[in-house]
Amino acid sequence: MSIFTKIIQREIPARIEYEQENIIVIHDINPEARIHLLIIPKKEIPSINDLEEEDRELIAEMFFVAKKVAQNLGVDSWYKLLFNVGSLAEINHLHLHLLSDI
Amino acid sequence: MSIFTKIIQREIPARIEYEQENIIVIHDINPEARIHLLIIPKKEIPSINDLEEEDRELIAEMFFVAKKVAQNLGVDSWYKLLFNVGSLAEINHLHLHLLSDI
Repeated sequence: MSIFTKIIQREIPARIEYEQENIIVIHDINPEARIHLLIIPKKEIPSINDLEEEDRELIAEMFFVAKKVAQNLGVDSWYKLLFNVGSLAEINHLHLHLLSDI
Repeated sequence: MSIFTKIIQREIPARIEYEQENIIVIHDINPEARIHLLIIPKKEIPSINDLEEEDRELIAEMFFVAKKVAQNLGVDSWYKLLFNVGSLAEINHLHLHLLSDI
């Protein structure tokens, strides 16, 4: 079970920004920008390299969530969305970084 | 018409890495890494902020293309996928950066 799944199951605390049926958004514990969120599918997809056909709707939904959360936080005029893939990723549970310094 | 649409229509040259019906992949003209590709939907979606419901399949497809191209180039063990949104984006036609230094 990944650390993110433990957060989703409320076994580990986190600052949760948003949650819906299949996605959770938390604040990164080591922020690299004023706003640093992680948009995480509840399904434990290891990485973009492991995407399967059945994940299409979920991956698209992550970007609709990103757009909504950026707007809610008032940072939609300047933000980055980043996936680290392969050995760059510290946790093998897909997560999209949302970073903004405004 | 965006500069990317002009590339798609072969009005402006570019180093094309991959192309399919609704997506093109080109090499960034000012690379910020050894491999720096742009994965571009042929539809002129301005940015993630402008995603519409009908774009769900296309946004998902961009990541399947990213995964495939990373594998083809042998960089799938270490790469970043990045969207710059809002005033960070230099071109108002959605494009996903694929960066790798391996």
